[in-house]
Amino acid sequence: MKKEFTTSVPLSQVTVTDPFWGGYMELARTRIIPYQWEALNDRVPDAEPSHCIHNFKVAAGLEDGKFEGCVFQDSDLAKWLEGAAYSLVSHPDKELEATIDDVVDLMEKAQQPDGYLDTYYILNGMDKRWTNVRDNHEMYCAGHMLEAAVAYYQATGKDRMLKIMIRVVEHISSVFGPEEGKKKGYPGHEELELALVRLYQVTGDPKHLALAKYFIDQRGQQPLFFEEEAKVNGPAWEGPLGLKYYQAAQPVRDQQDADGHSVRAMYLYSGMASVAKETGDEELAAACRRLWESTTRRRMYITGAIGSSEYGEAFTYDYDLPNDMIYGETCAAIGLAMFARRMLELSPKGEYADVMERALYNGVISGLSLEGDRFFYVNPLEVVPEACEKDQRLHHVRYERQKWFGCACCPPNLARVTSSIGWYVYTQREDALFVNLYAASQCRVTLGGVPVTVSAEGNYPWEGTITLKVSAPSSFKSTLALRIPGWCRTWKLTRNGKAVEPALQDGYAMLDGDWNDGDTLVLDMDMPVERMQANPLVREDIGKQAVMRGPIVYCLEEIDNGKKLYEITLPREAGFTAKWEKDLLGGVVAIGSRGLRTVKSEEESGLYRFAAPIKREEVSLRWVPYYAWNNRGVGEMTVWVHSEEL
Amino acid sequence: MKKEFTTSVPLSQVTVTDPFWGGYMELARTRIIPYQWEALNDRVPDAEPSHCIHNFKVAAGLEDGKFEGCVFQDSDLAKWLEGAAYSLVSHPDKELEATIDDVVDLMEKAQQPDGYLDTYYILNGMDKRWTNVRDNHEMYCAGHMLEAAVAYYQATGKDRMLKIMIRVVEHISSVFGPEEGKKKGYPGHEELELALVRLYQVTGDPKHLALAKYFIDQRGQQPLFFEEEAKVNGPAWEGPLGLKYYQAAQPVRDQQDADGHSVRAMYLYSGMASVAKETGDEELAAACRRLWESTTRRRMYITGAIGSSEYGEAFTYDYDLPNDMIYGETCAAIGLAMFARRMLELSPKGEYADVMERALYNGVISGLSLEGDRFFYVNPLEVVPEACEKDQRLHHVRYERQKWFGCACCPPNLARVTSSIGWYVYTQREDALFVNLYAASQCRVTLGGVPVTVSAEGNYPWEGTITLKVSAPSSFKSTLALRIPGWCRTWKLTRNGKAVEPALQDGYAMLDGDWNDGDTLVLDMDMPVERMQANPLVREDIGKQAVMRGPIVYCLEEIDNGKKLYEITLPREAGFTAKWEKDLLGGVVAIGSRGLRTVKSEEESGLYRFAAPIKREEVSLRWVPYYAWNNRGVGEMTVWVHSEEL
Repeated sequence: MKKEFTTSVPLSQVTVTDPFWGGYMELARTRIIPYQWEALNDRVPDAEPSHCIHNFKVAAGLEDGKFEGCVFQDSDLAKWLEGAAYSLVSHPDKELEATIDDVVDLMEKAQQPDGYLDTYYILNGMDKRWTNVRDNHEMYCAGHMLEAAVAYYQATGKDRMLKIMIRVVEHISSVFGPEEGKKKGYPGHEELELALVRLYQVTGDPKHLALAKYFIDQRGQQPLFFEEEAKVNGPAWEGPLGLKYYQAAQPVRDQQDADGHSVRAMYLYSGMASVAKETGDEELAAACRRLWESTTRRRMYITGAIGSSEYGEAFTYDYDLPNDMIYGETCAAIGLAMFARRMLELSPKGEYADVMERALYNGVISGLSLEGDRFFYVNPLEVVPEACEKDQRLHHVRYERQKWFGCACCPPNLARVTSSIGWYVYTQREDALFVNLYAASQCRVTLGGVPVTVSAEGNYPWEGTITLKVSAPSSFKSTLALRIPGWCRTWKLTRNGKAVEPALQDGYAMLDGDWNDGDTLVLDMDMPVERMQANPLVREDIGKQAVMRGPIVYCLEEIDNGKKLYEITLPREAGFTAKWEKDLLGGVVAIGSRGLRTVKSEEESGLYRFAAPIKREEVSLRWVPYYAWNNRGVGEMTVWVHSEEL
Repeated sequence: MKKEFTTSVPLSQVTVTDPFWGGYMELARTRIIPYQWEALNDRVPDAEPSHCIHNFKVAAGLEDGKFEGCVFQDSDLAKWLEGAAYSLVSHPDKELEATIDDVVDLMEKAQQPDGYLDTYYILNGMDKRWTNVRDNHEMYCAGHMLEAAVAYYQATGKDRMLKIMIRVVEHISSVFGPEEGKKKGYPGHEELELALVRLYQVTGDPKHLALAKYFIDQRGQQPLFFEEEAKVNGPAWEGPLGLKYYQAAQPVRDQQDADGHSVRAMYLYSGMASVAKETGDEELAAACRRLWESTTRRRMYITGAIGSSEYGEAFTYDYDLPNDMIYGETCAAIGLAMFARRMLELSPKGEYADVMERALYNGVISGLSLEGDRFFYVNPLEVVPEACEKDQRLHHVRYERQKWFGCACCPPNLARVTSSIGWYVYTQREDALFVNLYAASQCRVTLGGVPVTVSAEGNYPWEGTITLKVSAPSSFKSTLALRIPGWCRTWKLTRNGKAVEPALQDGYAMLDGDWNDGDTLVLDMDMPVERMQANPLVREDIGKQAVMRGPIVYCLEEIDNGKKLYEITLPREAGFTAKWEKDLLGGVVAIGSRGLRTVKSEEESGLYRFAAPIKREEVSLRWVPYYAWNNRGVGEMTVWVHSEEL
């Protein structure tokens, strides 16, 4: 394995004590997971039914009935299982474990003699299975269930679900593969690839890695499998995307741009990065870097949202980032964080952690209400409720989080990411520990042969001071690498009270030498309010600025600043203030500033007129974290604000 | 009839000598009308077939076959007939007349014993006629054919087509009407209403006016006819528009906003204005004014385009005017000019003529190539070809005019408007002649009991000096009312060489008193280049300006100014120059100015960054008339340009 590769420190070795993320983990445990269990059992009043448990019970022969819901319905249960498993790591819970074991019973009973397990085809006709892998999500569901099985095994040591899923994998590898007589196909919705690598990391069985690699390398090869299928099943997707929708128009190593359905893309790229690392495949790693750059340097919102268009829930083209018509699916931002973590494992570069942080602190958790029981599927950066009501082009944009969705991929995805946040904080290799996020936490790792606990304390993201303490039975030699975030212009670092100026490498302050029990690092990052601007190629943001403080993107909401937020201009001298407000939105730093607002009389002087100076009046603006918008009722919101040029 | 009502001076009394419009009339006569006759006969290579003549031949029993094309296919032929008839007024042509008479033969043979004439139902089953007036356009087709019949009668005195259409009207009034046993319906696509008033103006038969008034007043009455039909036929239009799409959700007198399909709306409002005038119905006139204001003060583009969304080809809501995703159908701008002319007849206000001029000189003729044989259906104000290719939200926007369309409403509509432009120039009443447009022309009218010819000379819209000469066998008393356009800030007027300062009334300079043969007025309007801005409620135009000179809206094209037009800023000191260029785009005044353009290095510094002054370099800009864009190949175009504030 290459020297630069790192490994994410697993959940079992990280205890998150962070007030910020700790709150979300608690929410996952006490609200999201129990609420979603009710949803999966169709017991949430006034919400669309899930049918998940119903389908498994019927497939297990325990209930009469037929398959209900989407073709990928099983995956909602899988993601919930995975999230519940993560929750058990930090908070063992016999009752929850028993619930999961009941589901495993259902899985066991539903599994077919040859290992097949997908309730859609078990209930709709086994003769049709594997006839439409482009659209019918069998491998997608298997991948999610496999991730759940790995997570549950890692959380509890119980291997019953894992064994079920290994049988599923063996069945799949009897159907697909390079050998003669097997189908030369690959998942229509990627996911199984990354799950197979996770399985391989548990089993060490090279067949599991090989199958992941096969799916990745076979994708987009001539003759195109999905075109062959289409000759029987008919075409799937009209319009300009074609097989790009599935990232399947050409081999992944030849793909230059992040194209098509953005969640599919992130899951594929995550699988590619994992395979590249496990196989040391530099060409595949280069493809990952290319697609990473396409995604994050030309096609990503400032919140870490991706997917500019509802059509295909997809990327469009470089720098096309409309703030109101965005898709920006919660799952896609989660996928971006997953991809980023794997890129960090390929090479520890601050750029990857910057994007991971951007997504997690903004565009991921914007999908979740502060109460934990309402969800956004689409995460716009600019909302005018009237426009969403009256303009069909915005029909996909909700201006209020929903209880559940008929296609409910996002809510359980939020459950699994919030309950596994500890997984994103640290990466390590033999000679170094990288601190990627500044969530308060304890990390138990072996460094220089010594079992070490590194504790991070602080009040991130609201304050920029982080204290890291080393606890070890003996001294050891290692590098502690502290990420200096892209948002941070100035910082100071002390080691046991003395200022140090360590070398900076790819965005990390590299502190090496010998470490002793009780050694303390204090990283003090200045966290002023910053005005941000977009690349001038982003047409939608020309003449506008956004406000950030630390990793947090702010927005203006109607409740604080009135209607017609687009009439506001941020003046050159903004006079920013930042203040902790414990009773606001669960406790946030709110920002105040000067603003200029077009006066009413300007609205009354005709539709088109001779250009003249526009009259504006001074107003006070109040900015709140974007992720927390729409927790105080319905109203306008905007991230990008018209601004005087500096 | 109310004193303030005026009448448009008809085509037969106006000879257009204008180089600008004369060119379009000539194009209509020599290119558009012959080309479209070929299209209607399916003889244009590589263009979608029209099927119009085919359908009539089959309906007439002269050919075997079945109905082809859209349910409203007959209307394409009707609009062509109307345009051809107008052309005969200024340019008699026996061959064209014979062609039209051949069509009349077909109509005569196709007409059913009870007067019915619509090839769709004649060929698809007469038992189904009048079962779906909401969607199936029978009355729309009848209305267009009726307009053609009136125009042909007025052009030639031949009444055969008129008689055929009167029989159609009699049939329709046997099916629909307030009397017991008749259907309480009205057209799904308005058009017949305004056509019936034109018929009434020829026949003087009060039944014709009464039927128009019935259709207008019955529209939207409870129980809603289209809802009754839907109980049998099923719902038509999903989504937020509902029956607003048809302007049929409530009685027209109660409607507050210009809603729904924009062409339908314009044709309805035109019919309403005509009925209001002919019946002296002040309540209906007030409804027209309300809908006029909604359309032109809150929902119209600077080019006179209307219809902000492809969804329903419709209006959306106030001040929602996206420049790239616009629908802006050519037919809708034509409809707006039709509505404006009728509002002028209700009351001679410069506001109406301003909008009429705005539409005719910009958003109408932008639909037509300078060669006369390529057409835009959608008229965007901002185009990036790459975006149209890659963004499904722009799939309706062509960045190149097309040869023909499967649904080809716009091309023959352009034929009829360009060949009847003389109709829009003058309105009169007993005591006054209103000059609404400054197209060079001769107008023969009776004023103060004396037959008078008023000749307008000039080089409008490129020059602001207009010379009006009176020619009369004896002196007469009247008012000559010269419109002072909204675009004009300063002007001078002389009467027989002496400066005069006449009273200004509703945007018209009112010159009264006695007039003698040879009297001459010279109106000298300053025509500088003007920077325009939109109401600050138009979100899409915030921070932008547009350039106009006289009535002409200008744009930047890639061929003159390079790609990425959105990187251009119009500086405070623009240094505009205007120059006649006879070889450019058929002869136009082109505008030059200073510009600032974001430098390349700004594009290379990341997707999001700390706000800083943006580096720009000085460039020369060249502006051309918007209507003439895309006549020099494919490229970007924009009307609204980012601008330094004044």
